[in-house]
Amino acid sequence: MSTDIEIADAAKMQPITEIAAKLALKKDDFEQYGKYKAKINFPVKEISGKKHKLILVTGINPTPAGEGKSTVLVGLGDAMNQLGHQTTIAMREPSMGPVFGIKGGATGGGYSQIIPMEDINLHFTGDLHALTSANNTLAALIDNYIMRDNKLGLDPRRIIWRRVEDVNDRALRTVVTGLGGLSQGVPRETGFDITAASEMMAILCLSESLHDLKRRIGRIVVGYSYEKKPITVDELGFTGAITLLLKDAIKPNLVQSLGHTPAIIHGGPFANIAHGCNSVLATQIAMARSDYTVTESGFGADLGAEKFLDIKCRVLKKIPDAAVIVATARALKYNGGVDKKDLTKENISALKKGMANLARHVHNIQKYGIPVVVAINHFDSDTEAEIQTIKDACQEMDIKGIRVDAWAKGGNGTQDLAKEVIALTKKTYDFIPLYDENDSIEEKITTIATKIYGAKRVVFSKKARKQMKQFAKFGWEKLPVCIAKTQYSFTDDQTKLGAPTDFDFHIRDLVPKLGAGFIVALSGTIMTMPGLAKHPSAENMDIDDNGQISGLF
Amino acid sequence: MSTDIEIADAAKMQPITEIAAKLALKKDDFEQYGKYKAKINFPVKEISGKKHKLILVTGINPTPAGEGKSTVLVGLGDAMNQLGHQTTIAMREPSMGPVFGIKGGATGGGYSQIIPMEDINLHFTGDLHALTSANNTLAALIDNYIMRDNKLGLDPRRIIWRRVEDVNDRALRTVVTGLGGLSQGVPRETGFDITAASEMMAILCLSESLHDLKRRIGRIVVGYSYEKKPITVDELGFTGAITLLLKDAIKPNLVQSLGHTPAIIHGGPFANIAHGCNSVLATQIAMARSDYTVTESGFGADLGAEKFLDIKCRVLKKIPDAAVIVATARALKYNGGVDKKDLTKENISALKKGMANLARHVHNIQKYGIPVVVAINHFDSDTEAEIQTIKDACQEMDIKGIRVDAWAKGGNGTQDLAKEVIALTKKTYDFIPLYDENDSIEEKITTIATKIYGAKRVVFSKKARKQMKQFAKFGWEKLPVCIAKTQYSFTDDQTKLGAPTDFDFHIRDLVPKLGAGFIVALSGTIMTMPGLAKHPSAENMDIDDNGQISGLF
Repeated sequence: MSTDIEIADAAKMQPITEIAAKLALKKDDFEQYGKYKAKINFPVKEISGKKHKLILVTGINPTPAGEGKSTVLVGLGDAMNQLGHQTTIAMREPSMGPVFGIKGGATGGGYSQIIPMEDINLHFTGDLHALTSANNTLAALIDNYIMRDNKLGLDPRRIIWRRVEDVNDRALRTVVTGLGGLSQGVPRETGFDITAASEMMAILCLSESLHDLKRRIGRIVVGYSYEKKPITVDELGFTGAITLLLKDAIKPNLVQSLGHTPAIIHGGPFANIAHGCNSVLATQIAMARSDYTVTESGFGADLGAEKFLDIKCRVLKKIPDAAVIVATARALKYNGGVDKKDLTKENISALKKGMANLARHVHNIQKYGIPVVVAINHFDSDTEAEIQTIKDACQEMDIKGIRVDAWAKGGNGTQDLAKEVIALTKKTYDFIPLYDENDSIEEKITTIATKIYGAKRVVFSKKARKQMKQFAKFGWEKLPVCIAKTQYSFTDDQTKLGAPTDFDFHIRDLVPKLGAGFIVALSGTIMTMPGLAKHPSAENMDIDDNGQISGLF
Repeated sequence: MSTDIEIADAAKMQPITEIAAKLALKKDDFEQYGKYKAKINFPVKEISGKKHKLILVTGINPTPAGEGKSTVLVGLGDAMNQLGHQTTIAMREPSMGPVFGIKGGATGGGYSQIIPMEDINLHFTGDLHALTSANNTLAALIDNYIMRDNKLGLDPRRIIWRRVEDVNDRALRTVVTGLGGLSQGVPRETGFDITAASEMMAILCLSESLHDLKRRIGRIVVGYSYEKKPITVDELGFTGAITLLLKDAIKPNLVQSLGHTPAIIHGGPFANIAHGCNSVLATQIAMARSDYTVTESGFGADLGAEKFLDIKCRVLKKIPDAAVIVATARALKYNGGVDKKDLTKENISALKKGMANLARHVHNIQKYGIPVVVAINHFDSDTEAEIQTIKDACQEMDIKGIRVDAWAKGGNGTQDLAKEVIALTKKTYDFIPLYDENDSIEEKITTIATKIYGAKRVVFSKKARKQMKQFAKFGWEKLPVCIAKTQYSFTDDQTKLGAPTDFDFHIRDLVPKLGAGFIVALSGTIMTMPGLAKHPSAENMDIDDNGQISGLF
């Protein structure tokens, strides 16, 4: 069996000029980065006469094995084009740090991949590096500010702006900086996050224009004064400098799938600490030039889809015409209590038990009114009986469960799903927002936790209660809430699988992300800087004298 | 008067395909990064029938005001092409951190600039970001290694591999990492350097091929074991992973000057802590395709040219056919004792006194046998009498001193210099190496300090003496030496201007850079991470809604 990288390497790519032509992009509408990558200049004018439909691909709670949501997304895009429906893929760009840690790439798999996959998974067009630079230049300016006259009285103990790096480096999670004497800065405790977890990444992804990017950067709260007043980048006077570092990074990237479907890959915020979707600009450009745009949200629908619908869609001013929930027999069995090592064995009763997880995600999406279909992403070890069990359960919910062979067959294995998606987008429906932006922070958190997660009630820490009062005072109450919780469970305890009920949901801390335009509500410990494994993938990687890479995926 | 950025913005650029054609590069020999930048694939075959001449541009000791060495280099390239001599420029690429600190760009100035200057001075094609990633991925792997089984017994107190960032961030000079508990790594004191000061940058610049890059990365000594044995990247097993992160960064970048001279801009190591020249590959490719290649070395000839000749040329296996020493009346007056604020006033006696600095640099270059000319880079405040004084002094040394107006007139203001350079390259000469690679480390340092700097003797610290013994034991004695000292003086005291004699030169510490292939000998305190000014340039920068940048240079 071929590996992902072997399949990708064997693929014949179309020149990026041909891919651009499929989106009616003219010569001056994009800039080439090599032969197979481009950055798209915006604004991009909407072509009238196109259907401009949007399809959201989301999933059940992920298991440690990975469920193939991106693979289904790419296969779906290819299948829709094969069937004559002009479709573009909009997707997140991968973070490089994890590539050297424990996982492979983030560009799909098998015969449903985005290419050139090595480039995309490594430095790509430099967006993450530009974000790292912008983030850390701001950090250096802040530390320089407090060692100078510090006119605004920024309290070194209350700086919330951290440095970032696109490397899995646990030793940087907590550091003391500014050591070494008088001219080396003000000593203080701080830390590094991975770039994908940064507010700068969330800002890039939610900006509608260069103007909007600058406005958002100016609003970032970097910390508080000795009088506990929030201090912004605008007040410090660094907005222009930080914005210009992102002048190219804000342009969406154009690549292609193995089936030569145009793929706009741009922005990659984490879906726990941030909102987990590709950039607004990428989705807008794809939609402006296509009948159908297929896009994704991070992790399970409880985190990813909720944030897509409640955070991104408010900026996008467009809601999905249909949603696909990706499930696998393995993941449902895992949710039904099967041990990781036993997932390849048939286990119908565990599968039925685990179906509760899928059912809750389906009902959640239906709460918004969105037409939904379940994609049963097929793995070799799945039995016919298992697939049928999922299909039957879907039928009971009055929706379709469709087997998908995106990994093994690409678009050819995803056409049944594509047909159902097309059918769903023909329905009209009334979108039902989950909460009103005028609700208080407490109300918003409570609505998400009880309606989407299934919690009985929300328990706020003393600190969080105090913060909610402060934030209301600062005028931040009307912002959407971005809950940071484990992706493995509906609850705040990653060991509670399936569809738990009757549980308390705990909020321990709030973090204002005024630039991104949301309040992060932290539940439990969320990792914002991953580590490396005992034997990191880096040990197996190599490149030969001709530039041939091995061991990367 | 127009600013550098206004001149650059007003320029009409030729498509990079046309610039590539001037070097007879075919479609598959390069990859476009936008319309005006490209990366060159190598190896590049030498075209027979070309002259393949190499001209080194160096300077007197720089003063805080900056002397315009890059401006003269670019003007010279344009002038030579104007005169019908096919010429290519090979130059360092700028570090981005300092752009936000205290200085402008590093792509020449006025009508002698490399363009697109904003791109080149910001992220360019991502080379520095790739180096940062490679450097810091290695750092993360090392910290992960010592918190795991640490089979080689790498002593956390003896790790010499530091992290880097292309940001001027003084607060990161000394940090404590690994805090926060058991799973956050091993706490230790370390720090960050600016990327341009890293061994990784020096390695990139001295590598002749991907094979050589990998060999050099494998040889990096990251620290010592508890038994004080050096430990390399090869021994840790990370060579392949780190090398593949540089697979694109190692390809030289092609851009153009305002006069449309091809400019290969690649690599930018500091000239104090590292060797300060653009990459070997950039110079090789320029020479392979040109009659004349004009290139530079960092800071004054005592640091830059010495390292160019004693470190880079050993790898390049080619010596310059002629050298240009850039001097200005202001800088010579400063060397003659004039205060910075009085440099615009005529002062012939101070100028004559300061000429001692230029004279020593001229004699130093002549010690290698290289034909030399002095370029008198003209500033508005210079008087005719001052220019004539320099010319007369040059005549006494039996060389030419030629006024250059590269800033104000571009190539048109540099043609006299170009003619003399062409004349000099017609001479043949015997190159006289400064030292033999079989000399001991002590002998090499003593030769450089006495013959080039004019020191009476070298005083080694107890530590340095101990290190020289150790290094000889490890078999590192045959490597060239890279002396890290202040750029402002021939001595190790930056206040001693002119051409001091009868002084002791102090070496306090040695650092093995086995990947780069040299031993750094530290004299005094060398800054490897610059800071930001009280009012950093960042405060004045802006970008408008259409992407127009201001305040950058």
